[in-house]
Amino acid sequence: MGEIVFVGLGLYDEAGISLRGLEETRTADSVFIELYTSLMPNLSIKRLEATCDKSIIEVTRKELEDENGKVVLTAAKNGKAVILVPGDPLIATTHVALRIDAAKQGIKTRIVHGASIVSAVIGLSGLHNYKFGKTVTIPFPETHSTTPYNVIAKNKAAGLHTLCLLDIQASQKRYLSTNEALQMLLKTEKKEGKGVATPRTLVVGVARAGSRSPTVKAGFIGEMLSFNFGNPPHSLIFPGELHFMEAEALIVLAGAPEELRRGV
Amino acid sequence: MGEIVFVGLGLYDEAGISLRGLEETRTADSVFIELYTSLMPNLSIKRLEATCDKSIIEVTRKELEDENGKVVLTAAKNGKAVILVPGDPLIATTHVALRIDAAKQGIKTRIVHGASIVSAVIGLSGLHNYKFGKTVTIPFPETHSTTPYNVIAKNKAAGLHTLCLLDIQASQKRYLSTNEALQMLLKTEKKEGKGVATPRTLVVGVARAGSRSPTVKAGFIGEMLSFNFGNPPHSLIFPGELHFMEAEALIVLAGAPEELRRGV
Repeated sequence: MGEIVFVGLGLYDEAGISLRGLEETRTADSVFIELYTSLMPNLSIKRLEATCDKSIIEVTRKELEDENGKVVLTAAKNGKAVILVPGDPLIATTHVALRIDAAKQGIKTRIVHGASIVSAVIGLSGLHNYKFGKTVTIPFPETHSTTPYNVIAKNKAAGLHTLCLLDIQASQKRYLSTNEALQMLLKTEKKEGKGVATPRTLVVGVARAGSRSPTVKAGFIGEMLSFNFGNPPHSLIFPGELHFMEAEALIVLAGAPEELRRGV
Repeated sequence: MGEIVFVGLGLYDEAGISLRGLEETRTADSVFIELYTSLMPNLSIKRLEATCDKSIIEVTRKELEDENGKVVLTAAKNGKAVILVPGDPLIATTHVALRIDAAKQGIKTRIVHGASIVSAVIGLSGLHNYKFGKTVTIPFPETHSTTPYNVIAKNKAAGLHTLCLLDIQASQKRYLSTNEALQMLLKTEKKEGKGVATPRTLVVGVARAGSRSPTVKAGFIGEMLSFNFGNPPHSLIFPGELHFMEAEALIVLAGAPEELRRGV
């Protein structure tokens, strides 16, 4: 009986993989990759194949979810199957189901961790990790979801920051932008009226985390609506109460308005 | 004017660094490492020096905090200084201060992210990332802190899981264990009485995340007190409400009691 090794690709491109992940991939009997749970904008499967000296088979959402990852499980029956996953592999809940199925069939699983968008965005913002509440994904506008608004509201009431991941539809090459997300939240504000997302609300936008020159910009929503974050992926943070060191970080590292020093 | 590149070492040993991090280190004019914010139990500076083909200077908490990282800032005046940091580098809040000081002196900073204990422990547990509330660090018993207990209580009241990082004193080679942390919380329970940490409370312990064979074990505190998690570092999760897929993951992947299927 073989095994499945979930290898995190980290962020942005094929240089995000760890030395441990590369070694596991080089010694695998079969190598799969999924690229639908998160966007790695500069990843080239060809360059990754050259680095690993392996052929890599891309698997779709249909194969991993509707067909319960049969293609990977079958490959793992008789050898080591590696599945390459953007970020830190088990942060995408879909892969937890594959681990459970594997375990039930007597196939061992291991994880080689990678840098995750979650810790990357928090680190880039300069905000303190232990002051974040529940994370939320903002879906596309057609869902008309008020969940993100309410998660931000609850975190704020507890003084906590909210990390908002922005939805992607990889098959459509469609990636929610900071601007669209803010427009949606302003609309929800008009209905809910909790003061969570107004033109005077401070937010932090991060684009292309993990690249050599990510964009990190803090400001009030009113101004941020016209800020150009460039290419995806984008993420968004709604800060709660700011420690003075956090305010300083937002001003110095993310161009937030100086008035933050006086408390906003 | 030069720059400082914060390079994440990821987890466990020197194979946790990314290809991007390795390349940045190989092309640096000076390379520093700090090993006091997090334990990488199998890291060898010698092996890391061989991999990078560079001499690496270890910097202490005193040098980075009391002396405001002067040694790194000075090196960055005339070239590229890399500072190697366990995990994802800016998750340790102490390094945010160094980034701010650098920016004020006109020194650019960049971040090469690494796998973080935060996302690794969540991934290993099989619990869903978006159901975690605020993270807390459990300090050593002599602090008599009730903060962790109250953070867990608040998260639980909102149905959310709590990731508990366990404190370290690197200079004393002292690492809080799961067992000690649970004993402390049981003591706090006796005083506070909110039903947050009783012998029948479900917890998940994770040891040596990032290694080839981490220990991941879920169970009731009463049983977990006698469970041997082996060598540090240890982390602990207090689950809130469980989705049935999360309960299944804890049973199949972490040896939780079968009665979890009926809801506990």
